[in-house]
Amino acid sequence: MEILIKKVRELKPIVHNITNYVTVNDVANALLAIGASPIMADDENEVEEMTSITQALNINIGTLNSRTIHSMLLAGRKAKSLHHPVVLDPVGVGATVLRTNTAIKIIEEVHPDIIKGNISEIKTLALHTSSTKGVDANEADQVNENNLDETIEFIKNYALSIQSTICVTGAIDIVTDGIKTVLIHNGRKEMSTITGTGCQLSGLIAAFACTTDDYVEAASEAIISMGLAGERAYSRLKEYEGNSTYRNKIIDELYHMNDLLGAKYERR
Amino acid sequence: MEILIKKVRELKPIVHNITNYVTVNDVANALLAIGASPIMADDENEVEEMTSITQALNINIGTLNSRTIHSMLLAGRKAKSLHHPVVLDPVGVGATVLRTNTAIKIIEEVHPDIIKGNISEIKTLALHTSSTKGVDANEADQVNENNLDETIEFIKNYALSIQSTICVTGAIDIVTDGIKTVLIHNGRKEMSTITGTGCQLSGLIAAFACTTDDYVEAASEAIISMGLAGERAYSRLKEYEGNSTYRNKIIDELYHMNDLLGAKYERR
Amino acid sequence: MEILIKKVRELKPIVHNITNYVTVNDVANALLAIGASPIMADDENEVEEMTSITQALNINIGTLNSRTIHSMLLAGRKAKSLHHPVVLDPVGVGATVLRTNTAIKIIEEVHPDIIKGNISEIKTLALHTSSTKGVDANEADQVNENNLDETIEFIKNYALSIQSTICVTGAIDIVTDGIKTVLIHNGRKEMSTITGTGCQLSGLIAAFACTTDDYVEAASEAIISMGLAGERAYSRLKEYEGNSTYRNKIIDELYHMNDLLGAKYERR
Repeated sequence: MEILIKKVRELKPIVHNITNYVTVNDVANALLAIGASPIMADDENEVEEMTSITQALNINIGTLNSRTIHSMLLAGRKAKSLHHPVVLDPVGVGATVLRTNTAIKIIEEVHPDIIKGNISEIKTLALHTSSTKGVDANEADQVNENNLDETIEFIKNYALSIQSTICVTGAIDIVTDGIKTVLIHNGRKEMSTITGTGCQLSGLIAAFACTTDDYVEAASEAIISMGLAGERAYSRLKEYEGNSTYRNKIIDELYHMNDLLGAKYERR
Repeated sequence: MEILIKKVRELKPIVHNITNYVTVNDVANALLAIGASPIMADDENEVEEMTSITQALNINIGTLNSRTIHSMLLAGRKAKSLHHPVVLDPVGVGATVLRTNTAIKIIEEVHPDIIKGNISEIKTLALHTSSTKGVDANEADQVNENNLDETIEFIKNYALSIQSTICVTGAIDIVTDGIKTVLIHNGRKEMSTITGTGCQLSGLIAAFACTTDDYVEAASEAIISMGLAGERAYSRLKEYEGNSTYRNKIIDELYHMNDLLGAKYERR
Repeated sequence: MEILIKKVRELKPIVHNITNYVTVNDVANALLAIGASPIMADDENEVEEMTSITQALNINIGTLNSRTIHSMLLAGRKAKSLHHPVVLDPVGVGATVLRTNTAIKIIEEVHPDIIKGNISEIKTLALHTSSTKGVDANEADQVNENNLDETIEFIKNYALSIQSTICVTGAIDIVTDGIKTVLIHNGRKEMSTITGTGCQLSGLIAAFACTTDDYVEAASEAIISMGLAGERAYSRLKEYEGNSTYRNKIIDELYHMNDLLGAKYERR
């Protein structure tokens, strides 16, 4: 793999984020850590103009409301018309009708280039069914060695049908556009004890997608980078340190990341 | 006392939070630290559905607005109809008419199971008067050994009159449903130099309340846990570290908490 | 210079913030670190009442929307009528028409006492032109030794024309009311790799402005304090630590700050 994070640091892309208010600060600091420049703006009267002066758009429905849903659609359509990469993070889709309908509307009207979710969220989108347990993946949906091939086939078909790159995060991460597929084995389970690692990842994917038209590569390297940051940060944790310090150390590791040493991935 | 935090870690309750955007990230990380699963959702079109798939509701009026007030009422009524524990944190009540009216409306229409505030906030609710200095307790209201008995009597009467468990936080914390009363002496005054320890506590109380019908016990153990985390984290601070590092270390201590060693409480 | 931070710690001013949801938690913790008391409230039905019980108002348009713009104007007019210091941080002004029009409206209708921005933002306000690159200063606008005198003259004229104290932050910070001017050389470039140091600074300026009618002194000392905190925190960073830990350590340094040792400023 090419080391795209170096390109991010050179390009310093501005990433427009319409994201939730829970993890927005972490998303901003994660983007700054890799050399990108975050901007957050969600008012309908400025999102199109704002997205025009940026290089990518990251839409995250984590704390959506009627006002910001409209802004997501406006910004999304504008970003696409300018050929900016658009990332959708359908947080909690399947948990409520509003989330499901909004995510599907964004997919239909905006055609995001990259969609990143856990397996329950992606299943909800592909099947229009709902098995989401809050914002975390339903245990019944977990990807493991037994259902891996089947899951990959399922996601490839969905990617082809909507012509997007799909990222399924979990113990094994799957990235595919239906033709090219990458499986990633980095990261640590303790990352799920921090709010926002998934939201940070969506921001990173948007930044990486500014450096290449190959969104499978862009998303894969963003996921590997986040996973490696999680591994490296964990190795620096003292026994009495917990999820809050871990959160800080993960962003710190992104700040210093300039290689993919330890990357564990395979192409399918 | 039973060690309810172990039950929280087993049960992994999903807690629905409609909370302020100042400390929402800390609330999420504090809930994750004790093994609960936080979800934040505040749009009127999804709050009832969202609260239905969770086990508890935490309403915090810290940055209320007309949109979210409506959502608080909708979610609150729904959660009560499902017998989920509902916690109200009436942040800054008494500071403005909007806050006072909103908190009183929530109490009247939702009947929260547990209300947690500083003494000024609780006095405002009980007396419909206002002596709040911003979001901190008015010094004239502080609970001390001289007015303790009188204050306990006052809070017991208020708890009985609205049939809720009332938690008054301060140098001495008081938890009572009017019949059973617990006084807690844990925590450190330096915790007030961090934004959000009170908001985190409300989230914890909601999670603990999923493990028992005895809300005095649930709230008391949540308060003791937060206080112990504050004490343990303080003992790990280096002399040059300040409130920001303290914030992280408190959540780290919650992450590792599995006992109540050092708990200082008395039953009245 | 007088050491105003000691006065802040004695006075414990309550600062009302209508600010963006990206960095609001950091603003709150930075204000607490210097001994002030932050309150955040942005609903039109309470902002006037809330600002009345505080000592200063900090308006930050970082994530403005139609609802909060109205609240900024209401709170701003009320705070001015009460002779509270009002600070405006026109984040990203020039990036969109909405931001430019809003900042100009606030300046015309509220007459903020102090306006703090980077050089691109201040140029946009003074010239009603737009050269902003996202929320960071345009490189073409950077203040350096070659254009310093010219830039100072420009800012002095703008300060005089709107009768406000103007703070331009950058490698060299400039504070002027058109008559008295202070240049400040503290801080580190790495501070721009953290989201929110600028927003924290606006909060600090509001708090410092509660201690003296000389707003050039107040703003200068707040800028020096933030810069010194950035320098001191940097010196404590380990080589593997990055922007997230740096963020925490800067607030920690504000927490312990009681002197201006290392201040580098000159009067013009």
